[in-house]
Amino acid sequence: MTFTTSASGAARLVARRAVGQSLEAPFYTSEEFFALDIEAVFAKHWLFVAAEAELPEPGDYVTVALGPYSVIVVRDDDDRVRAFHNVCRHRGARLLHEERGSVGNIVCGYHQWTYGVDGALRHAPSQPPGLDPACFGLRTVRVRTVGGLVFICLAEEPPADFDEVAARIEPYLAPHRLAGAKVAAQTDLVEHGNWKLTMENNRECYHCGGHPELQGCYFPTYGYEEQDITPVLRPAYERFLRAEAEAHRTYASLGLPYATIEELDTRATGFRIQREPLDLAGESFTPDGTAASRRLLADFPTARLGRLALHTQPNAWFHFMADHAVTFAAIPLGADRTLVRTTWLVHADAVEGVDYDLDTMTKVWKATNDQDAVLVARAQQGVSSPAYLPGPYAPAEEQVEQFVHWYVARLRAHLEGQL
Amino acid sequence: MTFTTSASGAARLVARRAVGQSLEAPFYTSEEFFALDIEAVFAKHWLFVAAEAELPEPGDYVTVALGPYSVIVVRDDDDRVRAFHNVCRHRGARLLHEERGSVGNIVCGYHQWTYGVDGALRHAPSQPPGLDPACFGLRTVRVRTVGGLVFICLAEEPPADFDEVAARIEPYLAPHRLAGAKVAAQTDLVEHGNWKLTMENNRECYHCGGHPELQGCYFPTYGYEEQDITPVLRPAYERFLRAEAEAHRTYASLGLPYATIEELDTRATGFRIQREPLDLAGESFTPDGTAASRRLLADFPTARLGRLALHTQPNAWFHFMADHAVTFAAIPLGADRTLVRTTWLVHADAVEGVDYDLDTMTKVWKATNDQDAVLVARAQQGVSSPAYLPGPYAPAEEQVEQFVHWYVARLRAHLEGQL
Amino acid sequence: MTFTTSASGAARLVARRAVGQSLEAPFYTSEEFFALDIEAVFAKHWLFVAAEAELPEPGDYVTVALGPYSVIVVRDDDDRVRAFHNVCRHRGARLLHEERGSVGNIVCGYHQWTYGVDGALRHAPSQPPGLDPACFGLRTVRVRTVGGLVFICLAEEPPADFDEVAARIEPYLAPHRLAGAKVAAQTDLVEHGNWKLTMENNRECYHCGGHPELQGCYFPTYGYEEQDITPVLRPAYERFLRAEAEAHRTYASLGLPYATIEELDTRATGFRIQREPLDLAGESFTPDGTAASRRLLADFPTARLGRLALHTQPNAWFHFMADHAVTFAAIPLGADRTLVRTTWLVHADAVEGVDYDLDTMTKVWKATNDQDAVLVARAQQGVSSPAYLPGPYAPAEEQVEQFVHWYVARLRAHLEGQL
Repeated sequence: MTFTTSASGAARLVARRAVGQSLEAPFYTSEEFFALDIEAVFAKHWLFVAAEAELPEPGDYVTVALGPYSVIVVRDDDDRVRAFHNVCRHRGARLLHEERGSVGNIVCGYHQWTYGVDGALRHAPSQPPGLDPACFGLRTVRVRTVGGLVFICLAEEPPADFDEVAARIEPYLAPHRLAGAKVAAQTDLVEHGNWKLTMENNRECYHCGGHPELQGCYFPTYGYEEQDITPVLRPAYERFLRAEAEAHRTYASLGLPYATIEELDTRATGFRIQREPLDLAGESFTPDGTAASRRLLADFPTARLGRLALHTQPNAWFHFMADHAVTFAAIPLGADRTLVRTTWLVHADAVEGVDYDLDTMTKVWKATNDQDAVLVARAQQGVSSPAYLPGPYAPAEEQVEQFVHWYVARLRAHLEGQL
Repeated sequence: MTFTTSASGAARLVARRAVGQSLEAPFYTSEEFFALDIEAVFAKHWLFVAAEAELPEPGDYVTVALGPYSVIVVRDDDDRVRAFHNVCRHRGARLLHEERGSVGNIVCGYHQWTYGVDGALRHAPSQPPGLDPACFGLRTVRVRTVGGLVFICLAEEPPADFDEVAARIEPYLAPHRLAGAKVAAQTDLVEHGNWKLTMENNRECYHCGGHPELQGCYFPTYGYEEQDITPVLRPAYERFLRAEAEAHRTYASLGLPYATIEELDTRATGFRIQREPLDLAGESFTPDGTAASRRLLADFPTARLGRLALHTQPNAWFHFMADHAVTFAAIPLGADRTLVRTTWLVHADAVEGVDYDLDTMTKVWKATNDQDAVLVARAQQGVSSPAYLPGPYAPAEEQVEQFVHWYVARLRAHLEGQL
Repeated sequence: MTFTTSASGAARLVARRAVGQSLEAPFYTSEEFFALDIEAVFAKHWLFVAAEAELPEPGDYVTVALGPYSVIVVRDDDDRVRAFHNVCRHRGARLLHEERGSVGNIVCGYHQWTYGVDGALRHAPSQPPGLDPACFGLRTVRVRTVGGLVFICLAEEPPADFDEVAARIEPYLAPHRLAGAKVAAQTDLVEHGNWKLTMENNRECYHCGGHPELQGCYFPTYGYEEQDITPVLRPAYERFLRAEAEAHRTYASLGLPYATIEELDTRATGFRIQREPLDLAGESFTPDGTAASRRLLADFPTARLGRLALHTQPNAWFHFMADHAVTFAAIPLGADRTLVRTTWLVHADAVEGVDYDLDTMTKVWKATNDQDAVLVARAQQGVSSPAYLPGPYAPAEEQVEQFVHWYVARLRAHLEGQL
């Protein structure tokens, strides 16, 4: 069941949101907020939609569904990544129907209107001579690539701070050489909850007791403040401190930037980046922490680099290791349904079965995603009750608050812009 | 397809409802009326939700879905039945996911907030010291038990007449000792119709020609007035009169109250109770009318007690026999979908296969429920046509009119309360 | 996802519709326009719903679902075709549940109210003596038959021009003697698009490159203007001109009217009728163009009559050949779902397996329908994107424009009528 609230009701709920607490129910359940989220968040901000590795050659494309939008991301003949609305300019038919593929031109299957991979209308059979092809090219979507990641923005006027953000995160990403990687695996999982519950769940590890596979990769004191370290946790904490010191020495010697930057809720293109050691073998998200791929992403002298963690608002998170990388994007499908797309990237020359075993590489995050899907569904069920009241975030949920704070600020900016 | 009507439209339709006729279409088909029914009827009145027998031991619970609400009904450590909203006070996650079970504490699976079966917050890991547990207990739901039946009310201020109603029906129910019974069977059936069509169907036997299994248990003159008795029905009617006279003697000798009370539409907690003989062997709802369980519910000297029939508004009906009892609750799932939950109760010591055969016990009502589901679906289909016009209730549909009259009065009270 | 627009928004979109372009998105996607289409188009115009051949004997009926309506079309005891709302006058239950069948009376399965096939209430059990049966007959629906086709109109005041249209098309249809035909096959296909996209797709052959089975039956120059004939098309065009001249001689000698009448958007009961040759053997819509049935529909001296094509607004099209006929009706199921019902008719005495092979007869249109369903679904997907803009119709899409022009004019007439 969905609870509805009027547009003015939405503005009132946005205005009265209490800092440090979960949102009121309609944010998670109403069709009005779902439409507002698409309009104010997903249609106005930069969104991670694919790795460049998904488009290795000219003509390679992926199609991305974002709410009611369908977008073609395609590599053009000059090797540039382009993005277009997946809508024919004749009578509006969807042009490309597969999730990915390769084309010479983009040909509408209805009446054979034909567009180049640069979006230009090349041929419109049987049209009157008066038709000016220049007026009927595919509608473009803004696109940017950063360190091998493709971001698009559906807005005519995208947030202006993306260049600055790109300049700051690019040096962290560059050493992992993702533009030359390949896709080892990709999963699509539908979570039965609002996309913000998916994101809130991602932004804290307070619930990580429910992730036995993942928990081993993090130090037992992950997310703890110094004052929280009980005597029983002391040995683990000291193991973490030693690993951190070693990691910092390694990062410095390899020229890998590792200063944490935390700007999740202080700008339109909110982000957070951090490089840190992992527990166990310290190399990767595998059951024993050893690298999942013998062929590393780059010529690193060691696989023991821990992880580079990147969060981007509104809807993505990433882990970059020495041997592979994992990208995650949460795509809203409805007020109470969200697609989580997870992609594992390895060196383009890594050979499955020789350099890496797919099950070993994907085991931790597949299990964790499945567990999170259960938790998100339960959260959605609970907040759908009229008896639900917003509750307090714990200190360990600081990034949840940052996500929600960013989100509410973006809604406010949108609603003010409409006045 | 759903027809919608505005809130003021709803009030107008409520105001102009014609006595003695079925309701206008939007009452059965519109989302507005569905929301209004949840708000004005199901969230404001006492609802039968379970038999006490479903919670024999401390920690035993059932979860009840009522529209958008989920409610935990649990027996606490002092043997009292309690009810709470099934919503964590932290970030709102649903707490219990099974339909029934047994717990020591109620632990949220998300971040392990832990509540006692009395609803008190016992433990909230990693919260700041400032958190006052007293402010974060589970939100309570009003609960009352009467003769082994559990009723809840979601409202802060429940109808005040429940105590009086309980006092009047308790003497009828007490001899059947339901608090000490056990569940022999339970079925959930989804009818494809509005909950009021389910109730209207329940409140008359004018359609019982479509229930061959059930029809045998009732006298052929069931629901007839004296003046309706044709010569061909005379012998059956005299059989009924003899059975009634015998029954009254039996009831009197056993001290079983049997005066019919009919207050279906004259109070907030509308009800009707009646004790009367059954046809055939006269003992139970079985194909030949004999008791389905050799172990009776109490130390009755005979199984030939007919039935004690209880109707409660808005959504329940019951049959209590010497050997077993059957409870029915209609739970709205959507404007055009209703869950009918049927529960068969027997003595706690009755042994399946020895004292009772489950198929024999459940055959009549399972068949009847299935037949009713077809009829209700057809009624829903018909009233969804713009060509539908309310039609006249027959004299045999008097209790249908009482149900609808009660319902409309409750909507009026609710709408006036909002002015 | 569905985009909504308010009622006043709908009027604005209707008012500003640009001639020569596809409609704006809400016409295809919004619930408001779906409701408006049912109300203004389907509930107000004459609709083809069945062939008389589907009701050969008194008591034979079909039920027709039109949006929220269900209509019984039945042949009465005087051999007249009648139509009634499929709703009991007691409590509104749907009366007939099958798509077709035969009845003596129409008996409600709920409380046995019984109506004659003339709609009169014959029996209402247990009703008070005061009930006047004359006030509780089935609600009638206007019905007309033309040349063996049954049309109904749900409005109290149907468009007045139907008699004139009937008088004009009846001479074209009469020689095919459909009233005495029988149903050889019927298919129901759900297209995942708005009914207007189904109709737009039907009204042009600009996309027929996607119909390999159908394309053979039409001349390669089908739909071309003289000036479009390139040298490579010249031989095919001359083949068409020869076939056309021969066909006109045949039509004249047999007294078959063949002047094209095109009044698709100049009247309430818009239609278009045309008799023309087919390519290949020129007899029928079969893979090689030869007749599908050896038993012709009438005593034609030759099967080489090409096709008589009839279009009726809002939602039907027909092909009548010497040997068989095919009828098509598009029935809206939702804003984005449409039922296409296709019926193949042959002479009542034709014997399957002897006179005709069902696969051969249905192959071309089954394949074409399936192909169209894919195209319509892609069109629906595309226009659902906020990036969709109406595009220009080509000259070959003239009948699409006529359909849309008629539709918009009917909405305007409806909206003005409401002022």
